[in-house]
Amino acid sequence: MTDALIEAVAQGLHMVDLGRQLKVGMPQSPNHPQFWHTLPRRHGDSMRADGGSAANDMISTGTHVGTHIDALAHVSQDGKLFGGADAGSACLGGKYVEHGVHTIKPMVCRGVLLDVPTYLGVADLEGGYEITAEDIAGTINTQHTPVGPGDVVLIRSGWGKKFAEGAAYVGGPSGVPGIGEGAATWLAAQHIHAAGADTIAFERLAPGGGHAHLPAHRVFLVENGIYIIEALDLEELASRRLYEFIFVLVPLNIFGATGSPVRPLALVSA
Amino acid sequence: MTDALIEAVAQGLHMVDLGRQLKVGMPQSPNHPQFWHTLPRRHGDSMRADGGSAANDMISTGTHVGTHIDALAHVSQDGKLFGGADAGSACLGGKYVEHGVHTIKPMVCRGVLLDVPTYLGVADLEGGYEITAEDIAGTINTQHTPVGPGDVVLIRSGWGKKFAEGAAYVGGPSGVPGIGEGAATWLAAQHIHAAGADTIAFERLAPGGGHAHLPAHRVFLVENGIYIIEALDLEELASRRLYEFIFVLVPLNIFGATGSPVRPLALVSA
Amino acid sequence: MTDALIEAVAQGLHMVDLGRQLKVGMPQSPNHPQFWHTLPRRHGDSMRADGGSAANDMISTGTHVGTHIDALAHVSQDGKLFGGADAGSACLGGKYVEHGVHTIKPMVCRGVLLDVPTYLGVADLEGGYEITAEDIAGTINTQHTPVGPGDVVLIRSGWGKKFAEGAAYVGGPSGVPGIGEGAATWLAAQHIHAAGADTIAFERLAPGGGHAHLPAHRVFLVENGIYIIEALDLEELASRRLYEFIFVLVPLNIFGATGSPVRPLALVSA
Amino acid sequence: MTDALIEAVAQGLHMVDLGRQLKVGMPQSPNHPQFWHTLPRRHGDSMRADGGSAANDMISTGTHVGTHIDALAHVSQDGKLFGGADAGSACLGGKYVEHGVHTIKPMVCRGVLLDVPTYLGVADLEGGYEITAEDIAGTINTQHTPVGPGDVVLIRSGWGKKFAEGAAYVGGPSGVPGIGEGAATWLAAQHIHAAGADTIAFERLAPGGGHAHLPAHRVFLVENGIYIIEALDLEELASRRLYEFIFVLVPLNIFGATGSPVRPLALVSA
Repeated sequence: MTDALIEAVAQGLHMVDLGRQLKVGMPQSPNHPQFWHTLPRRHGDSMRADGGSAANDMISTGTHVGTHIDALAHVSQDGKLFGGADAGSACLGGKYVEHGVHTIKPMVCRGVLLDVPTYLGVADLEGGYEITAEDIAGTINTQHTPVGPGDVVLIRSGWGKKFAEGAAYVGGPSGVPGIGEGAATWLAAQHIHAAGADTIAFERLAPGGGHAHLPAHRVFLVENGIYIIEALDLEELASRRLYEFIFVLVPLNIFGATGSPVRPLALVSA
Repeated sequence: MTDALIEAVAQGLHMVDLGRQLKVGMPQSPNHPQFWHTLPRRHGDSMRADGGSAANDMISTGTHVGTHIDALAHVSQDGKLFGGADAGSACLGGKYVEHGVHTIKPMVCRGVLLDVPTYLGVADLEGGYEITAEDIAGTINTQHTPVGPGDVVLIRSGWGKKFAEGAAYVGGPSGVPGIGEGAATWLAAQHIHAAGADTIAFERLAPGGGHAHLPAHRVFLVENGIYIIEALDLEELASRRLYEFIFVLVPLNIFGATGSPVRPLALVSA
Repeated sequence: MTDALIEAVAQGLHMVDLGRQLKVGMPQSPNHPQFWHTLPRRHGDSMRADGGSAANDMISTGTHVGTHIDALAHVSQDGKLFGGADAGSACLGGKYVEHGVHTIKPMVCRGVLLDVPTYLGVADLEGGYEITAEDIAGTINTQHTPVGPGDVVLIRSGWGKKFAEGAAYVGGPSGVPGIGEGAATWLAAQHIHAAGADTIAFERLAPGGGHAHLPAHRVFLVENGIYIIEALDLEELASRRLYEFIFVLVPLNIFGATGSPVRPLALVSA
Repeated sequence: MTDALIEAVAQGLHMVDLGRQLKVGMPQSPNHPQFWHTLPRRHGDSMRADGGSAANDMISTGTHVGTHIDALAHVSQDGKLFGGADAGSACLGGKYVEHGVHTIKPMVCRGVLLDVPTYLGVADLEGGYEITAEDIAGTINTQHTPVGPGDVVLIRSGWGKKFAEGAAYVGGPSGVPGIGEGAATWLAAQHIHAAGADTIAFERLAPGGGHAHLPAHRVFLVENGIYIIEALDLEELASRRLYEFIFVLVPLNIFGATGSPVRPLALVSA
């Protein structure tokens, strides 16, 4: 008995890692508990009678740090979560039982990269640039990569190159490029499953505007039940012009949480 | 241009989740920092001027909790890591730079379930039972599932059913079933890529013996560079007699850590 | 100009430390995040150009661990905190602004030890023993240590000797000795400022009863605004028959928290 | 039998709180894990059958945050701790057993405030200003507050007023005022017990210089075994011209840690 998937994998895969390394000091939003890792026990601290030794770790962190996914429970509008659930009573015993990150199924599905700066003929988008519905549609047409129901759409702005710079990546005075309400509404109408970007807040931030206004989060998480993935590394996909791939994302199954750090992959046959 | 992987996925997948849910109070080894999750900000705590609100999380945890993978840096023998690196000096600036979990590539490869109790004709293995090389070879032959270079081998003992009971899963007085040095040596000789089990310590623990003696960890992590995956949920795979599949495991890319919580998947065509 | 306090201290003090050491693995209630301490940076991890180096710490913990104080915000009854505040709305933005631990003033005041087992002529009280109002009054009379408004009253059961044993200290099947509703009501009528004990839950726990019923917490924290101090080490005070002293307790000033680890002192002139 | 201390306290005390409130988002050194506090369980999350409910906390933090004390184990010079202990081997099993914060005895002793800007006739010292031995001696003489063996000396720069501003308090481009090697050597020669300041790094930081050079830490912690207290609030003491007092500091008894958050008090008779 043959299995198409097993055979396809056996022929060889090319894998692109879309996740950022989790490292103490990496840029992250100050709204979330800082990522920290430390070694409580190192080799040399103690040794068993047989000469064996085990080192271990302690992590303290928010879930919206590094490359991460937003559960639907992350955002509410006028006191409501997706589907109209009351945002206050949705929290049972200190856990978001209904729309927590444990309700997101692992994703192994079609993924599409939308390389907006390449479409627009620029190296990277500027801080504060709003990617419009026309930019999205134009990129899709030029790339010949239609997007449809169940797809995961990754929107490249080029801003990801700043991750290594630290504070510049977060935006602040410069703002951050990204989609606005128009492009979000257009994408939601295609019934995509999730959308991601190479920035920390996924959507356009006005220069100096901070997180006061996040309409794409409302459109996706609250109005349409579409997951959001942030702080992706999309540079290798873009440089290889890999616009269509199998997208793999496995959130940690944290009961009742609003998000999870993730390490998404793009896969194609070798 | 067609892509075998994209086509195989497009035909439909069946996915089995092999990871345990991360939940406050779940059983874990007392050697590692306890898993905790809490919501610093809930909906209702504050609302933006536009009626939007975001809830978030704080996690404190070890990495060897829930379903998790051991990096090679986790274990040393006589002061040496895999490849002979000095275990003391391998820790640079508080990070295991060489064999840390960030060096484990995401796995998308052939996986094989070895359902040992079914082979032995019992419902589940008893605490303290040592799975021998003969048990492993017999299971492989009976299942017609050879294992070879690059495969990930998941060894079912049936002990995973106790996860919901809490303390009983950890073992203690009862011991825990698992492979011993003989089976580990036999499997290492097949050049497998990683091995997993449905128990907290992967290998056999003698009744009342605790973690004093862990020869399979030495054979795999220190002598052969084979990763170990612990606390898997293998019950659904066994009940469906799904012995061969594509195994997907994506460790968090935590710089310098000795392990990572993971949520592995088994995939086949639908 | 002379100052009576400065002169008294200059003459010499005798200090008794009433706090338990905070150590990974110490007994604590499973209801609270476990105490963990680790060193992210050790000497040797990095050195400045001038030969200097600094090591540091990471702590993850609940606040009701080790020797600690309960803020009034810790406990509610029928949805109300002390003074009738609504327990739900008292939490503003994820902080107990009104009755949080930051509202407890540091204590430097008269303290009285009530050595109940010595009064009763036994070495230690048994698990589940309820210290009655009569026991309290009898101990006070026998010791000649009246208690009144503003005093801090420390009630010894002898159970503190079990701290080093670990799980036995927490109680469980044995129960834990301590005051019940009667003694709490009697003490509250004396208008004391705070009460402490050498046990983990302050009050009597029935054998096998767990924390299902905590009337003394209600009487003190909710009905009378009297602070509770738990897991004190009262053995040295008792062995020295030091029944009256200056009690010093300085909670961490954690904004909006329900408690704080503390290290109380008993001081007398040398 | 009368006790001078009990009588002095009975006559009434005036207490000045020298500690900063621990609050998420307060300024702290980026070298240390960020202070976070959250409520895992709030009132309303669950209620016992009898109508009672308990809320609790989770804290994740470094120890060198907020107002804190440095243990001698915090700093080494050329691989040595105070007393010549080897800084590497002083860490046993992941704990600084010899010079950890658990070895600091609670302090109830004479304290002296040195109000340097008032002596110099300025409102506050400028960023980068080095307080010299002459400044210290001049302040002592003008205030008529000699310092000697066993005293705790608190050095006011006025910089503490910036605590509420956040990043400005940390220094960075501006530098921070404080003592240099000369003043540290002069104070160490008086055999003081501990020294504190109203800044985050205790000693002078050059504008833009960061923490590259910390000679006063070396003089105090490594060469003389004198503890350092940082981020004190000295404004009320100065405005009341309270230059002599009983200083109370009780570090958390954290086994093997390099420091502890503290909330020191200054006490005088009322």
